[in-house]
Amino acid sequence: MAELIFTEDRAHPGLDDFRDLSTADRRPDRPGGRGLVIAEGSVVVARLLASRYPVRALLGVARRMHELEDDLAGLDVPAYVTSAETMAEVVGFHLNRGVLAVADRPAPPTVADIVDRAHVLAVLEGVGDHENLGALFRNAAALGVDGVLLGPGCSDPLYRRSVRVSMGNVLRVPFASFDAWPGGLALLRDRGFRVAALTPRPDAVPLRGLREKVPGPVALLLGAEGPGLTAEAIAAADVAVRVEMVPGVDSLNVATAAAIAFHEITTG
Amino acid sequence: MAELIFTEDRAHPGLDDFRDLSTADRRPDRPGGRGLVIAEGSVVVARLLASRYPVRALLGVARRMHELEDDLAGLDVPAYVTSAETMAEVVGFHLNRGVLAVADRPAPPTVADIVDRAHVLAVLEGVGDHENLGALFRNAAALGVDGVLLGPGCSDPLYRRSVRVSMGNVLRVPFASFDAWPGGLALLRDRGFRVAALTPRPDAVPLRGLREKVPGPVALLLGAEGPGLTAEAIAAADVAVRVEMVPGVDSLNVATAAAIAFHEITTG
Repeated sequence: MAELIFTEDRAHPGLDDFRDLSTADRRPDRPGGRGLVIAEGSVVVARLLASRYPVRALLGVARRMHELEDDLAGLDVPAYVTSAETMAEVVGFHLNRGVLAVADRPAPPTVADIVDRAHVLAVLEGVGDHENLGALFRNAAALGVDGVLLGPGCSDPLYRRSVRVSMGNVLRVPFASFDAWPGGLALLRDRGFRVAALTPRPDAVPLRGLREKVPGPVALLLGAEGPGLTAEAIAAADVAVRVEMVPGVDSLNVATAAAIAFHEITTG
Repeated sequence: MAELIFTEDRAHPGLDDFRDLSTADRRPDRPGGRGLVIAEGSVVVARLLASRYPVRALLGVARRMHELEDDLAGLDVPAYVTSAETMAEVVGFHLNRGVLAVADRPAPPTVADIVDRAHVLAVLEGVGDHENLGALFRNAAALGVDGVLLGPGCSDPLYRRSVRVSMGNVLRVPFASFDAWPGGLALLRDRGFRVAALTPRPDAVPLRGLREKVPGPVALLLGAEGPGLTAEAIAAADVAVRVEMVPGVDSLNVATAAAIAFHEITTG
């Protein structure tokens, strides 16, 4: 069982990992440059506790900590229980989710580690928006995508806002970063994957029916909402696919377009 | 051509429609209880100018107003051009999109008006979150849904945040509210529609292949993200369908689930 420590001492050194998160919010590598992973709210904290991430500590109000009692049963970590006021002062803003947990980052897997265990993958290029990135992981988890591979220009999936928007699914869906781009995609092809680039280009084939053409392992290549995929990335793919849309309407949000494509791939 | 009025007079009566929008943000029926429609940013303002909504006035910085020159060509409305500072003082916060337009609400269509012109409809119950509602309209517009019908518990699609998140598509996709619920659904059935309720219930049929069973006009019934559809609404539908998801993962965001279903219906 986690050790419950009741304190209203704002200067308690055990709370240092939780200090000034709104500042850390603009500096994903904070606090202390150690790249800690922050989970907020009972649902996401429970997911962190169940993950392979080494949890350092929890901080929360009594009611929220109580909700996590079963999740904490097998863990040997300090759990600081305090008032909402003390919590707000330590964290730097009023956190209405009422509980936080902080973890270290384990050594990241390689692209090859993930590819070897996967049948459907998402590959991202230039997805820098933390909310879109989090939503992509949520959709990937729900729709049975086995892993996410990150090309250049993507932000850190373990950044606090991405963790929250993903509902903790960044802690569940494995991810890794490419060293070479788009050359690194050759590894996927070597392992039997076909790479399908999602793009609104009119010469792309409709997503509908993709699985008839590409029945085996598939990696879906996704770009940022505005600029989309680079020409180099599209050229490196085996096929370009598009979501059929009404002419003249702005493109869909990237996480939404991805969800449509994930569904088509995993059920098609 | 719209009349350009250059002013730095914060008390100018022509600016009254734009005052204190952050207060109005909590009162969708404001300002003045007239239920004005507010569009923010060049893209959404252009969409408002092209809509059937009677525009009252614009307020913006010179650069943004200049971007809208072509859209303003055929219109006879005052366009107030001012500095970012004056604009922020009038509006009540700093608006980095730099241009606003305000319109009256035209008389709303009836459910029957919309049903008569539609082949695919979305029917919402209890979708009170303004961002989800806006995202639903954006996805409906992109994926070819002909109209949105609102049951009880839905918020106002013309609320400022919904207008923004929809990227102005609430001004393009027609919508109407039911008087009777779920009894009002009978009208749809009378006009040849089948009603499909989207629900995570395990006895629902997979979405995939829905069009083989329901090839004609279809109305997709959608509930709020947490509670989902009421039992009464599901009972009033002809068929219950579900997005196939990985067991143990939280449900998708309602607008995302809707996008998957819209795509399945319009391309299936």
